[in-house]
Amino acid sequence: MITLCEVGPRDGLQNEPKHVPTEDKVQFIEQVVDAGVKKVEAVSFVNPKVVPQMADAEDVMKAINKRNGVTYAGLVLSRSGLERAIETDVDLLHVVVATSDTFNQKNARRTVDKGVDENSAVIRDAKNAGRPSAAVLATSFGCPYEGHVDETKVLHVVERFLNAGATEIVLADTTGMANPTKVKQMVRLFKENFGADTPLGLHFHNTRGLGLANVIAGYEEGVTTFDAALGGLGGCPFAPNAVGNVASEDLIHMLHEMGIATDVDLEKLLKTANWLERVMGKTLPGMVMKAGPAYETTKA
Amino acid sequence: MITLCEVGPRDGLQNEPKHVPTEDKVQFIEQVVDAGVKKVEAVSFVNPKVVPQMADAEDVMKAINKRNGVTYAGLVLSRSGLERAIETDVDLLHVVVATSDTFNQKNARRTVDKGVDENSAVIRDAKNAGRPSAAVLATSFGCPYEGHVDETKVLHVVERFLNAGATEIVLADTTGMANPTKVKQMVRLFKENFGADTPLGLHFHNTRGLGLANVIAGYEEGVTTFDAALGGLGGCPFAPNAVGNVASEDLIHMLHEMGIATDVDLEKLLKTANWLERVMGKTLPGMVMKAGPAYETTKA
Repeated sequence: MITLCEVGPRDGLQNEPKHVPTEDKVQFIEQVVDAGVKKVEAVSFVNPKVVPQMADAEDVMKAINKRNGVTYAGLVLSRSGLERAIETDVDLLHVVVATSDTFNQKNARRTVDKGVDENSAVIRDAKNAGRPSAAVLATSFGCPYEGHVDETKVLHVVERFLNAGATEIVLADTTGMANPTKVKQMVRLFKENFGADTPLGLHFHNTRGLGLANVIAGYEEGVTTFDAALGGLGGCPFAPNAVGNVASEDLIHMLHEMGIATDVDLEKLLKTANWLERVMGKTLPGMVMKAGPAYETTKA
Repeated sequence: MITLCEVGPRDGLQNEPKHVPTEDKVQFIEQVVDAGVKKVEAVSFVNPKVVPQMADAEDVMKAINKRNGVTYAGLVLSRSGLERAIETDVDLLHVVVATSDTFNQKNARRTVDKGVDENSAVIRDAKNAGRPSAAVLATSFGCPYEGHVDETKVLHVVERFLNAGATEIVLADTTGMANPTKVKQMVRLFKENFGADTPLGLHFHNTRGLGLANVIAGYEEGVTTFDAALGGLGGCPFAPNAVGNVASEDLIHMLHEMGIATDVDLEKLLKTANWLERVMGKTLPGMVMKAGPAYETTKA
């Protein structure tokens, strides 16, 4: 069984110029959960002055009707974010650090080392407050400034986060630089170093058309959790005309066509993707919402 | 070594509403060959009244400066097309039949059986005239009217074309219904039935985002020839908003990133893709032309 982590409400919307009202965010989350999605990156507890799109995190968490068996995650980048998060009933924290120094400096004005230190403290404090944390490693498959990121560097960051108590690791291809060969190599190294049972998720962008091919590569190496955003929401700040996250409905469509089971109802997901397009007021990059599922035949 | 068959000048342009002048077609072909492409579906000898976009086949063939080591193919659908083709110096004929009756009836008003008969006669006559033929089997991975197409049906058509003297077979996913599992199964069956040495090409559309994943699946089963169209030219007549062929430059970019060699110079191909966008006067679906190659870093 494959688990889809729907990151549209956070990663997707945060990278869209349009500010979406709280009630639409809530409806977005409720609808994907209704379609069978078991994990949602729902909110971000970042500084509302820096990221005003995400300022309503508490309101979103209050308004959603949390369901059993579904994990609602919230992004936390600092201690003050953690303080806000534990006042809500968010189930899981997502902490993020990029694995390349240049990217970290540009995005968070700190080195990788300092970022891991600060995030490790957040993970420990969260654990003491009874909340588990997933550590997301941005630029794990390449950095737009530095190019190739050495695998041993990535593995070292993973090790430190696991030692700090992270309950899962997500390797993220922040700007769509991964390819299936790289993905297989990285996952094999991960499993060699941390065992096959350490929870690992993969997060791909479709920037250069390889999102779904990378998912298959990860799946073939035994990974069962993948991030995606409904409709392919969220662009790429490094390439204004490029697309963003793998589209959730395209991912589910592919898996089902390949005979791989998920908890998700594709028809419901497609309906929500169409609704989301209306909310966003623009065409989204998702492909199955335009072509229809492969199993749907035309009348002769 | 992987061979790209550039089908943009024929399959791509034929499915675009805009009629491209002969001199641009010639430049298109010359530029991709200059970038290292060794096989081009250059023209179509179809009835000019039915497909006016392709009426200048003879002029295109006359104007191009044919180079050694490059195969220039032309589509032929009937005996009259063959008569025109052998008056030019086209190297290879592409004959096409769909493997589902409904699709054939809608597109060529004949059954699969009759289509194979008529195309087999074309292949034999072409052989007598000293020209080899590749048989393209449309809807090999699914028919938009009938859904799943039985593999044994596809294999039967392959067998008849090989018996008629086809020198290569191309299995085409005309409307983007294939998936990696299906591709692997089909290629395995092909090799079991006709041996690993019978030349096999694969033709994928990116209609549902799986074009490149399907290429990898075929590659992993030992296929080394893939069709693609520069910029992802050519839409899908069954889904007006969907994309068409796999983009040549995205395919080459993927292979190079994975460490798989081709004869093609990606930079030159990307330049030609940008030129083609200007010729077509619209944004094409190719992704690497928007995001840049993964190896190209941004200045910090």
